[in-house]
Amino acid sequence: MYLVDTVRDIQDMARGAVLLGTGGGGDPYIGELFVTAQIKKGHYPKVVSCDEIAPDAFVLSIAGIGAPTVIVEHLVSERTLRELLARSEAFYGRKIDALISAEIGGANSMFPLALSAISGIPVLDADGIGRAVPQLEMTTFSIYGARATPAILMDDSGNVVTIEAANDRMAEELCRVISVAMGSMAFMALYPMSGKQASEVAVKRTLTQTLEIGRCIRKARDTSSDVFADLVRYLNSWDGRTARILFDGKITDVVHETRDSWHWGLATIQALSTSKDVCTVQIRNEYMVVRINGETVTVVPDLISILDRESGEPLTAEMLRYGQRVRVLGYSADPMLRRPESLEVLGPRQFGLDEDFRPIEVLTAAR
Amino acid sequence: MYLVDTVRDIQDMARGAVLLGTGGGGDPYIGELFVTAQIKKGHYPKVVSCDEIAPDAFVLSIAGIGAPTVIVEHLVSERTLRELLARSEAFYGRKIDALISAEIGGANSMFPLALSAISGIPVLDADGIGRAVPQLEMTTFSIYGARATPAILMDDSGNVVTIEAANDRMAEELCRVISVAMGSMAFMALYPMSGKQASEVAVKRTLTQTLEIGRCIRKARDTSSDVFADLVRYLNSWDGRTARILFDGKITDVVHETRDSWHWGLATIQALSTSKDVCTVQIRNEYMVVRINGETVTVVPDLISILDRESGEPLTAEMLRYGQRVRVLGYSADPMLRRPESLEVLGPRQFGLDEDFRPIEVLTAAR
Repeated sequence: MYLVDTVRDIQDMARGAVLLGTGGGGDPYIGELFVTAQIKKGHYPKVVSCDEIAPDAFVLSIAGIGAPTVIVEHLVSERTLRELLARSEAFYGRKIDALISAEIGGANSMFPLALSAISGIPVLDADGIGRAVPQLEMTTFSIYGARATPAILMDDSGNVVTIEAANDRMAEELCRVISVAMGSMAFMALYPMSGKQASEVAVKRTLTQTLEIGRCIRKARDTSSDVFADLVRYLNSWDGRTARILFDGKITDVVHETRDSWHWGLATIQALSTSKDVCTVQIRNEYMVVRINGETVTVVPDLISILDRESGEPLTAEMLRYGQRVRVLGYSADPMLRRPESLEVLGPRQFGLDEDFRPIEVLTAAR
Repeated sequence: MYLVDTVRDIQDMARGAVLLGTGGGGDPYIGELFVTAQIKKGHYPKVVSCDEIAPDAFVLSIAGIGAPTVIVEHLVSERTLRELLARSEAFYGRKIDALISAEIGGANSMFPLALSAISGIPVLDADGIGRAVPQLEMTTFSIYGARATPAILMDDSGNVVTIEAANDRMAEELCRVISVAMGSMAFMALYPMSGKQASEVAVKRTLTQTLEIGRCIRKARDTSSDVFADLVRYLNSWDGRTARILFDGKITDVVHETRDSWHWGLATIQALSTSKDVCTVQIRNEYMVVRINGETVTVVPDLISILDRESGEPLTAEMLRYGQRVRVLGYSADPMLRRPESLEVLGPRQFGLDEDFRPIEVLTAAR
C-alpha cells in the first residue's frame, strides 16, 4: 500500500482529479466523501503500481456513467458497489486482482478507490486516458487493443444490464442510453484486462499525479508560495510534458447549454491587465480549445484547466461564473494520447472542431 | 404438430395477426415471408396446445422490439434467431422446450414461428395478450405473475445485452432504449416461464384464432360470401366474446405523427349512407378508442380493427389513407384482460384517455 494514507490525501487527489478533468468528468466530491468516510472507519484504499501487478492478474475498470449534474448529487451506495463486484466476479468467472480507473479526470478517479476501500482489492496507479473524456470508448485501453465489453451496468434500484457490444463505439451508445434509463447515473464494470495488457495500454502513474497536483496546490496555499509557479514547475517535471499559464483574467461571459445530452458552453475571459486581449474557452463537457484573440493556444487532447486566480482551485465547467477571476492553464497530454492512432479518436475534429491537433508547445512557442 | 401445414396457413395467420394487432404491433409481412421460405424448404413451425406442455417444461418468449416502420423493412436473419436461441439456452442454463409469442397481434405472431421452423422447438398456441400492445410489460404474463426478465436482446450486428430489471416497467424502459440504440429493431428472449406458469398466465388458443380469422376472410372472399357477416359470426363463436361492425364509411381525414417514439394519429370516417354520422378512431400505436358522433362505442383493451370495405383485409394504422372505404370492427378482449388487475395496466387511462373502460357489449347495447 502506498499513496493514500490520510483523508488529506483523498482531498488532494480529488482536487488533482478536477484539474485533470479539464472542466468535465463530473465533480469527484461525492466520491471523495465516500472514501474519506471509509478511511475514518479504518478502511484504506490500496494503490499499487503497474510494475507490481502479475501479468496474468485479472484487472477490471470500475466507473460511473451519467450526467455530471446527477453524478455530483448522487450518493455512492456501498451496497451497489459490493453488488457490482459480486456480479462481476460471477460473470467473468474469476476473482478481480486489481481495479483500474477508466478515466482519472473527475469523479471516475474516486469510484475505484471507493471500491478498494470496502473490498481490499488494490487500484492500479494508472488509468485509461490521463484526463477526462466524454465517451467511454475514448481511452488508451480501447485505442491500444483492450475491449470495453463485456461490461456490467447497475443502479441502486437493482437493475443490472450486461453488455457485449460489437465494438466500443456501440458499447458507449448502449451504456449511455441505459444509464439515462437508469436515472442518468449508473455504475459500470468494464474493460476486463490481464495485468500485462493493462500495463501496456494504460496511462501510468496518474493517481500519483492527482495526489501530487492536489498537494502542490494545497502546500503553495498554506505557505503563501506562488501556487501557479509551483504548479507549472510540478507539471513540467513530468517527462515529455509541458505546462503553461495561458491567460490571466476575469470571466466576462459564460454560456451553458445542455443539448443532445452534452454540456455545451463558451467562457469568455478578459485580460486583467490594460491589454485588450480576450480569451475564449470552448466547452463540450470538457474544455476543448483555448483561443486568445481568436488564435488557438491549446486544443484537445492536450489538457486545459481553469483555476481560481487566488486559491489555485481547479474549476469544473459547471462552476464557471460571470465575474470570476481565473487563470487558464494548458498542459500537454500524455504522449500516448498524441500518437496518430490516438488522434483519430481524440483529435479536435472528433469533437466537431474545424482544426487539426497541434501541440501546446508549438502553439505557445511564439508567446 | 398441428395448425401450420401450408404456406397458405401462414398467410392466413399473418392476416389474422393484423386484425388482432388492432392497428399496431408492426406488420407481420416480413416474418410471414421468412416462415413461408422455411416451409418451402420443408421446415415447418410446430404448434402445440397448452394442454400438451409438461408443467416443468421451460417456456420462453421470442419477440421483436422496435419501431413499426423499421420492423416492416427489417429482414429476419436466421443467424440472429439461431444465435438468440443459443445465447438463451446458455444463459438460462437449460434447453428451451417451447416458445410462446409475447403478443399475437402484428409482427410478434411470426417470430416464434420463424424460430420454431429453424429449430424444431414447438410454439405454444397462446400468447401474452391476445392482441397488440405498445409496451412489453403490458401482458397477462406480467399481470398474473411472470417476470419479463432476465431477458436477452440482440441485433444483427452482434450486439448482445442481458437485462435483469427490478420490475417489468423498467424492463420495458431498458429494452426500448436499447432497441433504439441497436437501430430501432432488436430481437428479444424474455418471460422465462415453466410450462405450468405459461398455461396459467397466457391467453389461450390465439395462434388458432389468427389462423381461423385469416382463413375466414380468405374463404369469404373466394366464395363471394359476405366477409363481414362471416367474420363477425366466427369471432362471436368464441366463448364470452362479442364482435360488432361499428361503422361503415370513407376515411375523410387521417393524421399521423411520431412523437416520443409513439405513433399518434386520428382517423375520421364519414358514413357512406345519407346519414351525417361521423366516426373517429384515435391511434396511439394501436387503435385506442372508436367514437361515433363523439360517443365511445369501443375502447381499449377491447379490440378495434379497421378493414378494407370490399376485401375485408385488416389495415394497420400506417396503411390508413384518405378516401379509403372501410369498416370498423369492435371485438371484446379476452376475459383475462378485463379483470380489475388487468385494467390497471391496460385500461383507457393508461393510454392517456379520460374515460374508464366500458365493455363493447355495454357501449353498443343501445345501437
